[in-house]
Amino acid sequence: MTRKQLVEQIRTKASFLCVGLDSDLTKIPEHLLSFEDPVFEFNKRVIDATKDACIAYKPNIAFYECMGPKGWQSLARTLDYIPDSHFTIADAKRADIGNTSKKYAQTFFEYLKFDAVTIAPYMGIDSVQPFLEYQDKWVILLALTSNKGSQDFQLLEADGVPFYQKVMETAQSWGTPDNLMFVTGATHPEKFRQLREIAPNNFFLVPGIGAQGGDLQAVAQYGMNSDVGLLVNSSRGIIYAGSGEDFEKDVALAANEIHQEMKDLLAKE
Amino acid sequence: MTRKQLVEQIRTKASFLCVGLDSDLTKIPEHLLSFEDPVFEFNKRVIDATKDACIAYKPNIAFYECMGPKGWQSLARTLDYIPDSHFTIADAKRADIGNTSKKYAQTFFEYLKFDAVTIAPYMGIDSVQPFLEYQDKWVILLALTSNKGSQDFQLLEADGVPFYQKVMETAQSWGTPDNLMFVTGATHPEKFRQLREIAPNNFFLVPGIGAQGGDLQAVAQYGMNSDVGLLVNSSRGIIYAGSGEDFEKDVALAANEIHQEMKDLLAKE
Repeated sequence: MTRKQLVEQIRTKASFLCVGLDSDLTKIPEHLLSFEDPVFEFNKRVIDATKDACIAYKPNIAFYECMGPKGWQSLARTLDYIPDSHFTIADAKRADIGNTSKKYAQTFFEYLKFDAVTIAPYMGIDSVQPFLEYQDKWVILLALTSNKGSQDFQLLEADGVPFYQKVMETAQSWGTPDNLMFVTGATHPEKFRQLREIAPNNFFLVPGIGAQGGDLQAVAQYGMNSDVGLLVNSSRGIIYAGSGEDFEKDVALAANEIHQEMKDLLAKE
Repeated sequence: MTRKQLVEQIRTKASFLCVGLDSDLTKIPEHLLSFEDPVFEFNKRVIDATKDACIAYKPNIAFYECMGPKGWQSLARTLDYIPDSHFTIADAKRADIGNTSKKYAQTFFEYLKFDAVTIAPYMGIDSVQPFLEYQDKWVILLALTSNKGSQDFQLLEADGVPFYQKVMETAQSWGTPDNLMFVTGATHPEKFRQLREIAPNNFFLVPGIGAQGGDLQAVAQYGMNSDVGLLVNSSRGIIYAGSGEDFEKDVALAANEIHQEMKDLLAKE
């Protein structure tokens, strides 16, 4: 998907919500467990319940990989089911030496046909470039993540500049705002003004609202750019909003609530 | 596998060779392609040809993942086939927020039963800890990698100390030499004296000899500790040493050559 198509979706729906499909066999409603592929049945219902409220889906690959070959089947089926209008993100946090990263790029861009994949920056340029070589596909590079451990290394300063900033500055010479986004966690709302200064034109994928406690208002206030420039993700807060046989209703409610908040924020722009 | 068992294997065989099973369907000998699971057939022959020369195997997960569910089957079969005497490393370079890293740990330690998994440090403590909670399992944390891009961020200095050193120092408060190793690339031989000072007791997984051009002599001279403390990996240089129907002979020769070099190095200790 191109940036133009992504921005059109955001403007048409007045939503920049990404739903994280961290679908865990041990957490999905019990009545789905008798299906041949419970995780896919769960995702299908979540997608049906949220597709009007969101513009992107982000399966976290860890939750599929841990089921072995069956998990990869659930993932492929889920990808097939997501409407073409929606941006798809493989939350995989991969990266390896060049010839190996090529294989990961094949997996997520050719085999599974995701629009984007999250990438860890530690190994530098040749670990990222194979992903940037695909037309209309996206690298979403970890910059300032939402978790507690983001403080261990990402905030260390080199030449008076925090490490995540070095990552964002350096990576802008590898990719463009048309194929490179950054992960910037909503649990650091006070940083969004500065993050937007470092990368004025790139989209940010923002995890950490909902279960992790991040603040959507602050993220939007300081993080938006003229193309909105944000994909705000909620996973557990939406997909596990309900647990009974009619869990879809609660899932839809949770997604619609964030959607309404986003509509209000975009109306104020 | 415990550290004691690993060191016993190294001493018994006079080898610290790890064979990297980066098995690529587009590169394996043609006569294997008619089998139902060509990658497994290839690995089986490579294992038969190298098991007396090496003490560890390291499949890089990218090469399996790109084949979808079939790739995971080939990987599981390969793991089953590797003798129990050998240390097994999932070269996966994973890491995510805590609850997600738990799922990756389940995949590699419970589902696939690897002894060790390579982990990217960027996301910090909670992304690594779930892997350290397993008894007799190992985290192998990326420190100074063998690729060109290792220069982009790993060598940046914070408080006068390179980033890879910060990673190694900080991580030693998370794990012990009994469950934590570091990846230190053989393409930086001049750094091994200093690397060993930073982490005197931890094992190092050393990629980069062979196809990537690293220097085994220098690595051993400066990198060994009293338990040897090195797992030196070669992937392409061994597994693609031959290409005909009798490729196993060339594979064995390539592995035996490094084994002999290691025997000589250990005899000089």
